[in-house]
Amino acid sequence: MALAGTDLATGLRALVGDAAVLDDADSRERYGRDETERGGGPDAPFFPPQVVVLPERVDQVAAVLRFASAQRIPVTPRGAGTGLSGGALPVYGGIALGLERLGRIRSIDARNLVVEAEAGVITADLQRAVEAQGLFYPPDPASRDSCQLGGNLAEDSAGPRSCKYGTTRAWVLGLEAVLASGEVIHTGGKNRKDVAGYNLTQLLVGSEGTLAVITAATLRLTSLPAATLTMILPFPALAAAARAVETICAEHDPAACEILEAAAIDAVGRLMPLPPMLRASAALLLIELHGEHRDRLLERAELLAAAAAAAGAGEAMVAYDAAEERRLWAIRRRVGEAVKYLSTYKEADAVVPRAALADLVLAARAAADRHGLQAICYGHAGDGNLHINLLRGDLDAAAWHARRDAAEGELFEAVAALAGKITGEHGVGWTQRRYLPLSVDPPTLALMKSVKAAFDPMGILNPGKIFP
Amino acid sequence: MALAGTDLATGLRALVGDAAVLDDADSRERYGRDETERGGGPDAPFFPPQVVVLPERVDQVAAVLRFASAQRIPVTPRGAGTGLSGGALPVYGGIALGLERLGRIRSIDARNLVVEAEAGVITADLQRAVEAQGLFYPPDPASRDSCQLGGNLAEDSAGPRSCKYGTTRAWVLGLEAVLASGEVIHTGGKNRKDVAGYNLTQLLVGSEGTLAVITAATLRLTSLPAATLTMILPFPALAAAARAVETICAEHDPAACEILEAAAIDAVGRLMPLPPMLRASAALLLIELHGEHRDRLLERAELLAAAAAAAGAGEAMVAYDAAEERRLWAIRRRVGEAVKYLSTYKEADAVVPRAALADLVLAARAAADRHGLQAICYGHAGDGNLHINLLRGDLDAAAWHARRDAAEGELFEAVAALAGKITGEHGVGWTQRRYLPLSVDPPTLALMKSVKAAFDPMGILNPGKIFP
Repeated sequence: MALAGTDLATGLRALVGDAAVLDDADSRERYGRDETERGGGPDAPFFPPQVVVLPERVDQVAAVLRFASAQRIPVTPRGAGTGLSGGALPVYGGIALGLERLGRIRSIDARNLVVEAEAGVITADLQRAVEAQGLFYPPDPASRDSCQLGGNLAEDSAGPRSCKYGTTRAWVLGLEAVLASGEVIHTGGKNRKDVAGYNLTQLLVGSEGTLAVITAATLRLTSLPAATLTMILPFPALAAAARAVETICAEHDPAACEILEAAAIDAVGRLMPLPPMLRASAALLLIELHGEHRDRLLERAELLAAAAAAAGAGEAMVAYDAAEERRLWAIRRRVGEAVKYLSTYKEADAVVPRAALADLVLAARAAADRHGLQAICYGHAGDGNLHINLLRGDLDAAAWHARRDAAEGELFEAVAALAGKITGEHGVGWTQRRYLPLSVDPPTLALMKSVKAAFDPMGILNPGKIFP
Repeated sequence: MALAGTDLATGLRALVGDAAVLDDADSRERYGRDETERGGGPDAPFFPPQVVVLPERVDQVAAVLRFASAQRIPVTPRGAGTGLSGGALPVYGGIALGLERLGRIRSIDARNLVVEAEAGVITADLQRAVEAQGLFYPPDPASRDSCQLGGNLAEDSAGPRSCKYGTTRAWVLGLEAVLASGEVIHTGGKNRKDVAGYNLTQLLVGSEGTLAVITAATLRLTSLPAATLTMILPFPALAAAARAVETICAEHDPAACEILEAAAIDAVGRLMPLPPMLRASAALLLIELHGEHRDRLLERAELLAAAAAAAGAGEAMVAYDAAEERRLWAIRRRVGEAVKYLSTYKEADAVVPRAALADLVLAARAAADRHGLQAICYGHAGDGNLHINLLRGDLDAAAWHARRDAAEGELFEAVAALAGKITGEHGVGWTQRRYLPLSVDPPTLALMKSVKAAFDPMGILNPGKIFP
């Protein structure tokens, strides 16, 4: 039923104008990739769309979807393409629907502490805009300087601060979205409580563009924290660090509680100078505290350092100014870059109940070892969510894909045995879909498919994603 | 297709045992009512079921639903019957499915800060059980000493503390539920982040028993606040109190920020002695602060009192011990009882963006005035959610129903004009369903119906609820 590329572009241009429709080879190439396999080069997943559409208004999104429904053409919604699970890859070709030009912050309502913004707004731009009014939008995915709100909503993106503040979904009060049929829906609104009908808002968040195309969101805000404090605690053993995470989260409500295990410390140590004490540690915790008074945070940091010392930790490093805060955070933030510097890698995004954190690291090491790969673990310890990088090293494509898949499969089996899930914040997308049955039992999976069919009976929205 | 009462009871007894099936007149009477129209007596909504089933185990719930599906018999799930929107009324007869005997707290996992509990657990019992381990489950509906977790989940119940801590949904990580088909599903789990498939957990919360029967939940916990402080601020004008709510919520993150407007102060003043300063106020705010140190909360209370005084408020009353805290809270908590003492009443549960709070009170007064009724407003100011009681006085049934419906309709029109919603925490249920189109636009409402059909194709689960 699908139209050939040229016919498709012609039909779409008639609907949304020439400037919004791209079908040159460069554009199709660019919108056929994402960040799923970092540094993957020619072997990385690549699925060029037939045509790229970049609407500027909601009615144009609706027109594209009406057209796609009539012609039964697959539509793959896309933000900035920073996703790590292939959610934005047009695996069945068709239309890549980029939301990047829906980039307006529609309103900042300081009295009600809400902002309404379109899907294409870059997350960090949104944060800066509200911060200029003393307000705070906490979700902070690593890619926040380039990723877009729509992608954050599609994947329920998070980041370090979700430890205290929750993931993107915790901040979403309402959505504007376009159904596969082209109809525009509005869920929720500016109200802090709302039980008038089903909560479609929370169903759409994290649905990875398979149920509807989110075009705008109404987001809750809070006040900027008056004081912050960042510190690093070096531990001589992984288990001690993991146990400390439980205590710190239960007693100190940290804004962030991040971990680097030994291999991650080693990787980042090749990229930037690290103090010897950190370099010699089995695990580092990076803690960020938010509060009203710097003095109170310093008192709290002393308590934390003393408790950690009692558990064998080395001397705490506490940032005494903003520059030092950035330096400490760089140790955590640059791990991804450090791993990329070592090798192409595939990142698993496993999450487990927090008390199983050390078990997760051990399971990752064991799975990698069995297949002659290296695993590097780091991430959001306070949420039990680790990014487990499996390194390609100098393997050829066939060996890499075989070993990577085998190690990843065993890792996710271990995650399921720990009552964890295959993804905490990256989404199932295209690359993890075969593992979904490890996280969702058969009747629940069947029900999810019924929900998909209710929203998108012809299956044109982001086909090939989530479901095995 | 539905069986006659006796056949139905016989069939169900064969499935779940004699003790779980009641069809005597008293039981049918008891399970045919709820708290929708308080003090309503013979005119209050009453819909006796054909039979009452009180399963003790999930497999029994599944057996009842398989049977009901096969026979196409309506099933109305029910907790403690404390609902205020008729959600638990078996308006089409059939089976009243009481979850009260699924009353086990399955586990308290202090390391992961989660509790798993069955639908029939009384909310306050759950709170006491986790508090015994130093843990805190914040949602605090007014009926918490008698309402059950399953009802809280079905309605996304809240209470004063949702101002800081969010509604029930903010604390739900996973659900066990039974579909209309009798299949048991498991959503989410113990993980603090989870984007493995659609978030059915958050869709089911607030779905009022129309999508599935929730049998158990995995709930997130936090640590008990080390210090609390309760205070009352008396304001000479409604607008000043409403403006103070915005400032207090933006700057002081109160655990609760409740309001009583003049009519509510007057009502409670007839039930219990109030200091003359409170009695003479146009509005009272009751603030509860949570923190680590009592001293800091006292400093904060002084700031609050000073800011309120600058806005014309009278002297603040600050509770200096737990007994005094209870006394201050009684002024707020006893409003419902005080209104009941005056008259039968119908409670609307409107929610608006917080900055429209004073407008909501004025709209309620105007709508009541136009129909010769009295409105009494109080509730969760920090969330923009007021309970608006329309009083019957000495009207006969016909006049009361006509005036109540007319005033309520106009009130909800005004709420919609303020970008508010018809219900913040009580649910749409049976009594508000005609107003749902004021809160949900036609394509979104049609989509909700598609979701309902995907879960419950024969429409046996809580028919007659939510949808107009």
